[in-house]
Amino acid sequence: MQTIPLVLAGYGNVGRAFHKLILAKRPLLLDRYGLDLGIQAVVRSRGGRVSPGALQGALNNQDWEPGVKLEDALRHLKAGVFVECLPSNLKTGEPAMSAVRRAINLGWSVAAASKGPLVFDLKGLRDLAREKAVQLKYSAAAGAALPALDIGLRSLAGTELLGLEAILNGTSNYILTRMAEGLEYEAALLEAQSKGIAEPDPQMDVEGWDAAAKLIIIVNTMLDTSYGLDDVQVEGIADFLKFALRRAKAEGKKMKSLARFKRQGEAVILRVGPELLDASHPLFSVDGTNKGITYSTDSMGTLTVLGGKSDPKGAAAALLKDIIGMFVP
Amino acid sequence: MQTIPLVLAGYGNVGRAFHKLILAKRPLLLDRYGLDLGIQAVVRSRGGRVSPGALQGALNNQDWEPGVKLEDALRHLKAGVFVECLPSNLKTGEPAMSAVRRAINLGWSVAAASKGPLVFDLKGLRDLAREKAVQLKYSAAAGAALPALDIGLRSLAGTELLGLEAILNGTSNYILTRMAEGLEYEAALLEAQSKGIAEPDPQMDVEGWDAAAKLIIIVNTMLDTSYGLDDVQVEGIADFLKFALRRAKAEGKKMKSLARFKRQGEAVILRVGPELLDASHPLFSVDGTNKGITYSTDSMGTLTVLGGKSDPKGAAAALLKDIIGMFVP
Repeated sequence: MQTIPLVLAGYGNVGRAFHKLILAKRPLLLDRYGLDLGIQAVVRSRGGRVSPGALQGALNNQDWEPGVKLEDALRHLKAGVFVECLPSNLKTGEPAMSAVRRAINLGWSVAAASKGPLVFDLKGLRDLAREKAVQLKYSAAAGAALPALDIGLRSLAGTELLGLEAILNGTSNYILTRMAEGLEYEAALLEAQSKGIAEPDPQMDVEGWDAAAKLIIIVNTMLDTSYGLDDVQVEGIADFLKFALRRAKAEGKKMKSLARFKRQGEAVILRVGPELLDASHPLFSVDGTNKGITYSTDSMGTLTVLGGKSDPKGAAAALLKDIIGMFVP
Repeated sequence: MQTIPLVLAGYGNVGRAFHKLILAKRPLLLDRYGLDLGIQAVVRSRGGRVSPGALQGALNNQDWEPGVKLEDALRHLKAGVFVECLPSNLKTGEPAMSAVRRAINLGWSVAAASKGPLVFDLKGLRDLAREKAVQLKYSAAAGAALPALDIGLRSLAGTELLGLEAILNGTSNYILTRMAEGLEYEAALLEAQSKGIAEPDPQMDVEGWDAAAKLIIIVNTMLDTSYGLDDVQVEGIADFLKFALRRAKAEGKKMKSLARFKRQGEAVILRVGPELLDASHPLFSVDGTNKGITYSTDSMGTLTVLGGKSDPKGAAAALLKDIIGMFVP
């Protein structure tokens, strides 16, 4: 049995779901993998909580101690895995970026859920992790339960990536699905917000930036490149007209917000925007908050993976999968 | 750079495709993974060919030396990866079984393409590999380019498998697809044989045993169980009536030969047989020689992967992927 200390930063929807999942999965993790994963500290902007014997229950408002700092927790506990569930800005990576760098510098492996640091400087973080001989995994930031990176790195090992098409944003896909069923954009968005699918400020999702960030993370990871958001042509879904979606439906087609990478001679095209799919397209069945990705390769043909509904539970499960993968080959 | 000696057993369609792929991918493997993979011996029933400097071109009839034995090659070369592309019997595992055991016993890791040994005694082989501290991988035997095991073991790590549904046999799926388009069973089978999709003796494919074997390998790997072919209810496709398939089509449905694992209370149901899928089913779009698998889990919801067209090239690419995965984390 291996005992792995975890430090969790951030206690929003994903952080809380991760804590709950770790508590629920403890017997399975011990039994199946011989891993004893305990959260020994939770830190967020307004204080934290440290418990070297591992935190047993979910944390409530009265549990936070104002003086607890991430740096101290990372310094004083035996290094294990830093679980990053912080907010992050896609332009600067902060505040997640500094936290991830600090953890790696102090010898912690990282399971990251935020896109910001990975969009901002994936190459730098991978180099730093290699230099410090720790692991850096981030499935939760690139499709969550949709195993876009597992497939891209592992299942397609030895192939050349010719192109990819993906539905990477559950919120905009949900809105488009409901609009195809007759709702106006505003009504579909309100419904998504009331169900907790869309955030109060839905801009990142509906304007395509969330999908563009995931596309960049996947492509840069697979190809060892450094594309940025500026390299992606991004078009949102807010201007979609209901009648266009209903007309697509009447013709047996669907309008989807598709993230796309393709090669054109020596050049590369990165794009997020509306495309009309017919029923034979492998992503045609991806409705509601589901996601999907299709890779085109030289020696394995086309491979599609569907699933990974957007919710905090899926992101938490992706973090856990990444952590298991660090210790179980 | 790591130099990894490979010994290839079997030089049928898959073995030849693997040799060709290794030769074509050499620069990519060196550049991207720092791996120098060279086939230092090819052995088949009628002799073989050994070349410690790695075989550079495809082998023809005049190249075989009658005295070359697998045992000698494995014994005299520096242990690396044994690539098994032999025929195998689903009841005895032979002749692949003995070859795989011998390789493991002599300290070779194994990338296997045959189902026989894995159906016959997966647990025994995994235990032996653990004991000898070598790796045993067999994606090529469980869906080939369809990454059924990568997803099952890695992407779903930490989840409970609630059930799975899969289209695992490209040949019977091709025949059903063509029958839905109006062909009689015999005509569809003949067409599949003339295109090299179906073997001269198509029994294993059309009677469902090939799919049952893959189902068992996947389930036993994920759950660490020892189900055998006797535990699977198997129904083939030969008795399908064209009119039933056309009627399904007229109703917007498709008849597919589905491999299925599900839990029913404490019991487990393993089944291969015809099922009617409607258009919302995630495997609905799997036509022709394509394959697909849908996993249902507790913490990641439903995950589907589609692709992995049945052909020797895909099996060869799956062998290569497994070998890369042995050395690149």
